[in-house]
Amino acid sequence: MTVLPNFLMKRAALTPDRIALEMEDRRMTFLELYSNSLTLSGKLVELGVKRGDRISIFMPNSIELVELLFALKNIGAITVLHNLRLTSKELSYQVEDAASQFILVDDEREPGLKKSKEFLGTQKVVPFSKLLRLKGSEWTLVEEFSLDEIDTIMYTSGTTGFPKGVKQSYGNHFWSATGSALNMGLHEEDCWLLSVPIFHISGLSILMRSVIYGMRVIIHRRFEAEAVHKDLMERQVSIVSVVTTMLSGLLEQLGSRSYPPSFRCMLVGGGPVPRSILEECMRKSIPVYQTYGMTETCSQIVTLSPDFSMSKIGSAGKPLFPCQLKIMLDGAEAEPKETGEIIVKGPNVTAGYYNREESTYEAIKDGWLYTGDLGFVDEDGFLFVVDRRSDLIISGGENVYPAEIEAILVSHPSIKDAGVTGIPDDRWGQVPVAFVVTDRKEELLEESFLSFVRERLAGYKVPKQLYVVECLPRNASNKLMRRELVKMVPGLEGNDEN
Amino acid sequence: MTVLPNFLMKRAALTPDRIALEMEDRRMTFLELYSNSLTLSGKLVELGVKRGDRISIFMPNSIELVELLFALKNIGAITVLHNLRLTSKELSYQVEDAASQFILVDDEREPGLKKSKEFLGTQKVVPFSKLLRLKGSEWTLVEEFSLDEIDTIMYTSGTTGFPKGVKQSYGNHFWSATGSALNMGLHEEDCWLLSVPIFHISGLSILMRSVIYGMRVIIHRRFEAEAVHKDLMERQVSIVSVVTTMLSGLLEQLGSRSYPPSFRCMLVGGGPVPRSILEECMRKSIPVYQTYGMTETCSQIVTLSPDFSMSKIGSAGKPLFPCQLKIMLDGAEAEPKETGEIIVKGPNVTAGYYNREESTYEAIKDGWLYTGDLGFVDEDGFLFVVDRRSDLIISGGENVYPAEIEAILVSHPSIKDAGVTGIPDDRWGQVPVAFVVTDRKEELLEESFLSFVRERLAGYKVPKQLYVVECLPRNASNKLMRRELVKMVPGLEGNDEN
Repeated sequence: MTVLPNFLMKRAALTPDRIALEMEDRRMTFLELYSNSLTLSGKLVELGVKRGDRISIFMPNSIELVELLFALKNIGAITVLHNLRLTSKELSYQVEDAASQFILVDDEREPGLKKSKEFLGTQKVVPFSKLLRLKGSEWTLVEEFSLDEIDTIMYTSGTTGFPKGVKQSYGNHFWSATGSALNMGLHEEDCWLLSVPIFHISGLSILMRSVIYGMRVIIHRRFEAEAVHKDLMERQVSIVSVVTTMLSGLLEQLGSRSYPPSFRCMLVGGGPVPRSILEECMRKSIPVYQTYGMTETCSQIVTLSPDFSMSKIGSAGKPLFPCQLKIMLDGAEAEPKETGEIIVKGPNVTAGYYNREESTYEAIKDGWLYTGDLGFVDEDGFLFVVDRRSDLIISGGENVYPAEIEAILVSHPSIKDAGVTGIPDDRWGQVPVAFVVTDRKEELLEESFLSFVRERLAGYKVPKQLYVVECLPRNASNKLMRRELVKMVPGLEGNDEN
Repeated sequence: MTVLPNFLMKRAALTPDRIALEMEDRRMTFLELYSNSLTLSGKLVELGVKRGDRISIFMPNSIELVELLFALKNIGAITVLHNLRLTSKELSYQVEDAASQFILVDDEREPGLKKSKEFLGTQKVVPFSKLLRLKGSEWTLVEEFSLDEIDTIMYTSGTTGFPKGVKQSYGNHFWSATGSALNMGLHEEDCWLLSVPIFHISGLSILMRSVIYGMRVIIHRRFEAEAVHKDLMERQVSIVSVVTTMLSGLLEQLGSRSYPPSFRCMLVGGGPVPRSILEECMRKSIPVYQTYGMTETCSQIVTLSPDFSMSKIGSAGKPLFPCQLKIMLDGAEAEPKETGEIIVKGPNVTAGYYNREESTYEAIKDGWLYTGDLGFVDEDGFLFVVDRRSDLIISGGENVYPAEIEAILVSHPSIKDAGVTGIPDDRWGQVPVAFVVTDRKEELLEESFLSFVRERLAGYKVPKQLYVVECLPRNASNKLMRRELVKMVPGLEGNDEN
């Protein structure tokens, strides 16, 4: 069993005085970050956190959140990161599923959460300020991380409609960081701008790279094009992670200017980038690295290497050095250019879903993760993602799972059947729309129906339109054919230019 | 069990057209190197090489050697690398110990080897040209390397005088490369000059980094200061691995000039660097990275990070990111500044010695390798190597083990007892000298005695002086006190300026 030294402890020993984090006017060295994390660890232990406990986090991007994440690792607790946009009902489901001992929440969100039906009167919800006020107990530092040990859990939904917790081990994170460095290089003066959510793997993986590489990270609470643009121009940023909508916003800010020479990588994940945007980036000499990855692969697994950024435009690239990829078609490996299911393997790939043996068994066979996404590999070995898993909607970089929305819709007494799919949207890339079968159409216009949905689904999952139809398109085995849904409403089939 | 894709197969898929190797006027891309290795794999299989076989290599640095190394990995054979300076008797011992199926040897060395007593008439010795003439059989490519699998074996001696084969796994090599990159960074245009022997881990590890990083390597057959200097000045080299004697030679060549800006790292291993040389490098702005490592750690394990190259002159630095270090004194961890035995741990550290359970058990406890070297850690955590293992002599970067020489000396009928130690030498750093007890002093001057020694010991191990003494200094438990030896001969105690 391979062990490595506690990442932040080691980093603070190697390069104590290098800047680790910046946020607005604050800056913090690795030694300061480590020292703060140690203080917090004592407070967490006083609260009752023990090695192996699952601790839920429901907080926005901040330096305090980063300190908290490393404080939990110091104790050997498992961090469960939740999407801040979840409703209290959704959050409650995930917290129960992970059997989290506590939910650490920022002070702003705490009153709302405590007032909700699900968390009324519970002692589990701990506002961050309460944690800070504790004096701290004696505790023992975890000085070594076993690569097989679970570090973090993040939830994704899937075809079943029930969110599942993806186990991310210390090894998964380390190998992900290594694979990225072997592809993009590692410069002493690198600085990564983090404006994606830390509760997503795209954000969390930047923090892991920070301690593993010894790299400065500039944190933004959220993505705001103007503020991010300003930092790209002024703060010696070399890499930024974005999704397509963010890239569009940045291009608008940039206008006819160029980024400073220190900027060397625009890492674009979370769904396909339209060709028109890629071409605009080429014209402006912006080094775009298209990537393909997911929570289960702990960030990027396929990335377009700089050697080919121009000649293979539109491709997600090749699997990173430690990783492998195959296209499966009817149970066999597809020929080049044949579209099939993308399957991937590598030491950055999750060992499975928390407490879900069956889902794990279905998704991972012989070390290969069946992504459900469709794609092909060209004659030179480059991956082209044709479509994320047939049922997946990507809206502003967030994964939206139709099955999850459908399950909520049909749980309402007025709805007999429901199908959800994505339609193109200028701002968000895609938005979900629903097709429902009902005898009581008028009830769907009532406020009570809307609040029923909003209570159960985060805002970005709420269908932007509800179309009443006679019946849903199903195949012979009664499986919903979601791709057929848009054809039921004239004029709805948009032309996605991608 | 973690697996990675076959390193060179993967590298050739990622960056086929990048230059992998240069030697004199030849240059070769990763795709060409891979393709040549595939051809050689077929020939090796025709020769009779199978998965898991040990294959001995007795060849000088060359592009063909590199192709051969990767060809053996393609088949899943284990490569045993032998020091070219071994006598046929020494080589024979190692080949027997590893139970190698074949000994691949360059055409220049083959006739001599075949004529030696030990290899007379054996079918095991295969000249490289004979291998090349084979047509090649059908065979199956090993597409995945398990990190636990043995890739290479290299011999070191030790206190017992019997050379032992250090098992180096694919994981050891990969982690070593990763640890180095996390410390020194990884630039797309990096180029490492290889003029140390490939049969040493210092040379082999450069080739592993080449495929893992996708990095150009310039190979020299041997170190010649003028030729290496010329390449450093003219061929965009960024890193070179040297030992102290090589560094002195390069400084002489450099004179009052400086290296081009592309040069970013002089990696100095294989023993302590005198302060005067370090200061000369400082004056000439040569970025010296002092390192500490050994065959058992698959190259560097402790390296002085660039952040501290000036303020901690003389230190070997801190253990690389994946690695840990402790100083042990009387069975407990020493305090800062207390000298004790250096012990190290990390995924780059060998699992043990080939077919030597007892030696493995003695050297590695709980994952910690007991190096036998002496050192201390200062109050900031920097390692200062006080002395390589008390009995180790480092001569021109080669490890020389007194016990091995003593065993040969006492096996001669004229010698009753023998003790060997190193004395300072201007050219080689140290050279071995012997102290012997004999009743037949005159016989030691005869040619037959000299040829007895030269047949059994590589030239760099042959004692430069033989001092006849009455008896050897031994402690109460009859253990030879090698440090006392030099005191027996007036005027012999040199002042090592280090």
